[in-house]
Amino acid sequence: MTSEQLLGLAALHSWKQVLARFDKNLDTLSSDDFQKRVAPGRNRLFYLFGHLTAVHDRMLPLLAIGDRLHPQLDEAFIAHPDGTLDDPVSVADLRSAWTTVNTRLTSAFETFAPHDWLQKHTAVSDEDFAADPSRHRLAVVLSRTNHLSFHTGQFILVK
Amino acid sequence: MTSEQLLGLAALHSWKQVLARFDKNLDTLSSDDFQKRVAPGRNRLFYLFGHLTAVHDRMLPLLAIGDRLHPQLDEAFIAHPDGTLDDPVSVADLRSAWTTVNTRLTSAFETFAPHDWLQKHTAVSDEDFAADPSRHRLAVVLSRTNHLSFHTGQFILVK
Repeated sequence: MTSEQLLGLAALHSWKQVLARFDKNLDTLSSDDFQKRVAPGRNRLFYLFGHLTAVHDRMLPLLAIGDRLHPQLDEAFIAHPDGTLDDPVSVADLRSAWTTVNTRLTSAFETFAPHDWLQKHTAVSDEDFAADPSRHRLAVVLSRTNHLSFHTGQFILVK
Repeated sequence: MTSEQLLGLAALHSWKQVLARFDKNLDTLSSDDFQKRVAPGRNRLFYLFGHLTAVHDRMLPLLAIGDRLHPQLDEAFIAHPDGTLDDPVSVADLRSAWTTVNTRLTSAFETFAPHDWLQKHTAVSDEDFAADPSRHRLAVVLSRTNHLSFHTGQFILVK
């Protein structure tokens, strides 16, 4: 295996590891747990779960993997804070959307050669990418992996 | 810049970004805040901060960067849970240790060529590394970056 390949694989492994940790905790939660807040006055698990699902769904077009699967989540879980709108979906709907989106992303990442990781993401123009080649897919995936870790730290506070 | 270099730089950028986010929040906290818990019945900020400092200090020998600077933190912040032992240091001591350790780590990472990222970490034997070349320094740094993100998500719950 080349150095490039090893470097790309490390990012894939990190993504999978953080996702597995989140999913392991997810399996222990009841529907009632999702209405609990991570700390007094803070977001409900339900909101955070919808937020994470919407953010990961947005990665599909951002990384040129495919069209969005669940754009209807953005209004309640990205555009507005928790408690503003009625919940647009059920916990079961979110669990299903979460699994579908992440399976799609992980399957794509598993096919990425080093060259693919270093392709520009779609929110940056050709011109800006020429000036700053660090605005690639890998940067997005590392950032989203950290984002998921950040909220996993909050999720696990609810028993 | 080569593909290898771009891939290594992405990890460095991710590390710096997560550290900067944590440090930005740290600047807003008073000594009293450190005695607060991230959620009822959970760890105090003080404990988490000592834990993170000890874990990052351990990266110095683990990544063959240098000797440990603060091994005395392990007993209270790694070997025991919060509330078991008296706090062995002050918040000011921890702030200072945190900055020193991370400055040392980041300075080393900035000199890492792709080949350096892919060196084995010191907790794996030559034999095991030959069988599994993914047990390199980069894997440790990505894992610790996620670990810091995880606890940052908890830290920011305390205002």
